[in-house]
Amino acid sequence: MRASVLSDWLAQRLDRGSGQPVYRQLHKLLQQAIHSRELPAGARVPSSRLLAAELGIARNTVTQVYEQLVLEGYVTSATGRGTFVADTSPDEIVGAAEIGSIGSVKTPIKSGSIAGQSSSIATNSRTQPDPERSNGPISPVSVATDLRDDLGEQTQGLIQPPQLPQPHRPGARALSARGARLIAGAGVSKRQGGAFMPGVPDVSRFPARIWTRLHNKYWRTLRPDLLTYAPGGGLALLRHVLADYLRTSRSVRCSPEQIIITTGIHQSVDLAVRLLSDPGDTIWTEDPCYWGVRSVLHVSGLNPRPIAVDSEGINPSAADFAAPPPKLILVTPSHQYPLGMVMSLARRRTLLEYARQHQCWIIEDDYDSEFRYGSRPLASLQGLDTAGQVIYVGSFGKTLFPGLRVGYLVAPESLAESFATASAELYREGQLLQQAVLAEFIAEGHFTSHIRKMRALYGQRRQALLDAAARRYGDALPAMGGDAGLHVVMQLPEGSDDRAVAEAALARNIVVRPLSGYYSERERAASGLLIGYACVPDEEIAPSFDTLAQAIDATLPAFA
Amino acid sequence: MRASVLSDWLAQRLDRGSGQPVYRQLHKLLQQAIHSRELPAGARVPSSRLLAAELGIARNTVTQVYEQLVLEGYVTSATGRGTFVADTSPDEIVGAAEIGSIGSVKTPIKSGSIAGQSSSIATNSRTQPDPERSNGPISPVSVATDLRDDLGEQTQGLIQPPQLPQPHRPGARALSARGARLIAGAGVSKRQGGAFMPGVPDVSRFPARIWTRLHNKYWRTLRPDLLTYAPGGGLALLRHVLADYLRTSRSVRCSPEQIIITTGIHQSVDLAVRLLSDPGDTIWTEDPCYWGVRSVLHVSGLNPRPIAVDSEGINPSAADFAAPPPKLILVTPSHQYPLGMVMSLARRRTLLEYARQHQCWIIEDDYDSEFRYGSRPLASLQGLDTAGQVIYVGSFGKTLFPGLRVGYLVAPESLAESFATASAELYREGQLLQQAVLAEFIAEGHFTSHIRKMRALYGQRRQALLDAAARRYGDALPAMGGDAGLHVVMQLPEGSDDRAVAEAALARNIVVRPLSGYYSERERAASGLLIGYACVPDEEIAPSFDTLAQAIDATLPAFA
Repeated sequence: MRASVLSDWLAQRLDRGSGQPVYRQLHKLLQQAIHSRELPAGARVPSSRLLAAELGIARNTVTQVYEQLVLEGYVTSATGRGTFVADTSPDEIVGAAEIGSIGSVKTPIKSGSIAGQSSSIATNSRTQPDPERSNGPISPVSVATDLRDDLGEQTQGLIQPPQLPQPHRPGARALSARGARLIAGAGVSKRQGGAFMPGVPDVSRFPARIWTRLHNKYWRTLRPDLLTYAPGGGLALLRHVLADYLRTSRSVRCSPEQIIITTGIHQSVDLAVRLLSDPGDTIWTEDPCYWGVRSVLHVSGLNPRPIAVDSEGINPSAADFAAPPPKLILVTPSHQYPLGMVMSLARRRTLLEYARQHQCWIIEDDYDSEFRYGSRPLASLQGLDTAGQVIYVGSFGKTLFPGLRVGYLVAPESLAESFATASAELYREGQLLQQAVLAEFIAEGHFTSHIRKMRALYGQRRQALLDAAARRYGDALPAMGGDAGLHVVMQLPEGSDDRAVAEAALARNIVVRPLSGYYSERERAASGLLIGYACVPDEEIAPSFDTLAQAIDATLPAFA
Repeated sequence: MRASVLSDWLAQRLDRGSGQPVYRQLHKLLQQAIHSRELPAGARVPSSRLLAAELGIARNTVTQVYEQLVLEGYVTSATGRGTFVADTSPDEIVGAAEIGSIGSVKTPIKSGSIAGQSSSIATNSRTQPDPERSNGPISPVSVATDLRDDLGEQTQGLIQPPQLPQPHRPGARALSARGARLIAGAGVSKRQGGAFMPGVPDVSRFPARIWTRLHNKYWRTLRPDLLTYAPGGGLALLRHVLADYLRTSRSVRCSPEQIIITTGIHQSVDLAVRLLSDPGDTIWTEDPCYWGVRSVLHVSGLNPRPIAVDSEGINPSAADFAAPPPKLILVTPSHQYPLGMVMSLARRRTLLEYARQHQCWIIEDDYDSEFRYGSRPLASLQGLDTAGQVIYVGSFGKTLFPGLRVGYLVAPESLAESFATASAELYREGQLLQQAVLAEFIAEGHFTSHIRKMRALYGQRRQALLDAAARRYGDALPAMGGDAGLHVVMQLPEGSDDRAVAEAALARNIVVRPLSGYYSERERAASGLLIGYACVPDEEIAPSFDTLAQAIDATLPAFA
């Protein structure tokens, strides 16, 4: 293509009435011409002075476009000799020749060729699809498609739709093994609404005004140190306040330095698991247990050994004790998740002693421990540990609101610095301003006051639910695990299909979770329903339970 | 211990003037007596009526303490027969007998024994340390220590400090291999201050008033749906706004459904890596590259193959192409990190074609692409991809402020749903309220306006830095990589010790990073300094550079 041919071609396509800047149009058109080999590699582009004159646009615009194209690698500029279309075809992939279609080796075209010389290539690329090239390295479809979108039908004349590369076979690039397992086993629900969703607190009672006041206080003075990355472990003030709280209310023995602020239980467990175990290591988990943590363990390459639980909590069998010891043990001593029993003192000591002897680490998930009805919360397992072997994890997700995404981990003293470093290194966390707001919220007493209020509220709702269940089913379907937390487990007759019940409930806009889904070992799986009462308004509990009962009765005719 | 002996013992220790509630004191004292075997397993505790009378306290207080002790497993209550001390010694660990000291098998003591009957056990535990038990399963030190802290010296008489378990050998429970490597290789800095810290934007210019206004708007109406967990992928509104932005400004081809909101580049890469690769898989990384991502890859079990870069970006050798193909390729095409070059179009096509043929996934880290000085940003690699093989990741950490912790990932269409599910399953993210604020901030135009302002500001600072460097060193120490981003790389003479220079600078409160630390392969490592100019006020740039120059001159005498 001669300079004047190119100018004509461009002039036909520049649309001054389109509202799109001429700069942008020219830039795209030249890119397109190079992609489609209208302007083949090695061709000299007209001088900016000439092109500007022929197109009747400012020379500066052309210069800028050329500079951009240089930067992007479409053209190269040789001082005193002009500007040439670069060779943008892929490099030869050495060593990959045996795989076939890549054999289209790049021809080194040096500067010196002029527009028009390589027109056969240009023609070739816009006539018939060439089967030899259909797997080839160049795929200009994207740019051309964009241009058609931008410029409409006017490009249809000269510029043919370039040949498509052979379509990618879907599924040939697959998820990894751990990824596929993660997706297949995902327990997360897309449902946001519906009564009785377990694990969701009532966020409508959150003292938003207090929170906003504290928040604005920090934004008003704009403290740059609170807007940047967190030093390892989180904001010192929050770590101090939290250490006090955990010492007092949970008998956790810790200094502020042992506290690591995280985004919640998931990140706390992830951090502990990656710092303390390697792929292939065994971890004892309770069976049943929280599905979310199971996913975190799987993607980190751990090999979970599900341990049975009984009324005293985790209950390793002779076979469990005889097996090679695990690297980690993950337990929920205050309130087994999801069944709700408290781990007995005897079991706690057994576990601590076993871990001490076998040099295992214990992760204590103290989930929901703040919401205990009718009795004081038990001291933490961490508080009984004298061997520095317990990693304690907790969260503000249920006590304040899930969207806060703040949790914490208490590392053994010997590991505190490693945990802080690893947290900063892996996650680059740093919502320090939010951490400052939270610290002040706690320090001013709003946190304990909110917990107290919510505990009373949840206690009422829990009682309303238990009453409704007792009225309807008496002892036939007993509820358990209601001493603490935000849900109860209603047991269903052995062998009954709790998934079917949950599905029937879902059809009635009631979200309960089948207990059997929390088990790893099929033969242990008990049938039951997790019923979350926390976010159901008092007056809706009885009617919602009646709706749930319809689903139960419809699915398990014995109870109709 | 008879009831009256116990009462006397308790009466001596209850301190009504201490300000600590009697309930709490009594509870702790009884726990202590059981731990220390003053009250041995099987012993009957006095009735609440009798104990209350003897201590002169409310019967209700005693009843409550007993109930708590039942709940905690310290005592068991048999209706009509009284309350007995539970056997809280650890369970026998079957199958572990061969390891020695655990052989102290729990003696089943059934109810019926009375206080005093087991006094020999109690005596034994508080006289001489018994070597046979020094590794034994019970470690009452924690409770006893707490009590001494609480109650002072008064417990020193009767209650001897219990024998300590054999101290845990530090280091016997170690970090995992990946954990140790993570800590050893941690690049994160604890320094928050100091001029020239790379990668830190100037957050003092953030439009805090606009942000706070939007924030308050959402809090004022308290939308519970924004305070709970995020549905997979993040807030729909933000995903829409972001898709528009990325399409327009980065030529990313995506629908809102392909966008996953994350907490930043680290989480985006973590998610892609775990979903698309398994431990042991190879990933191509650029050499040099960002240290933080390297850590994320290591803990996920990946095997990085560092690929050299040249002026056109990643430059695989014949050996690289001949090696078994990687599962993943991680690149920074817009602005190589940390060197700053733009990946040429030819390389982009080579990479896309190689990935297509070998079914690799490409992760495009489009870090810092918004800050480009003097030229339009290049289109993304993702926009050139027609095979659905590019995962595009970006972040608001540099454009707004790092503490925001919001990033995003654009998944290939075929994987969008899997990515959304995996994100919710692994991270339980959900700062929806913040996402709503951000979406509105972008939609109202504040985001692009802020970027425009900051680009001008950073451009000035960059120029001031380049000028200062040129004045001092001319061409002797050339700067590179300054076309985009928030830092330049000042090259040091080959073989010079850039770490020593960085240390000398640190001693002068100047934080620069040695370039050699970004390389994986020692023989490639170039000597240089990453100098971040973004958060240095204009007027401090020249003086700070002079300070840095002192460090350079002191360390590399040739330049003095």
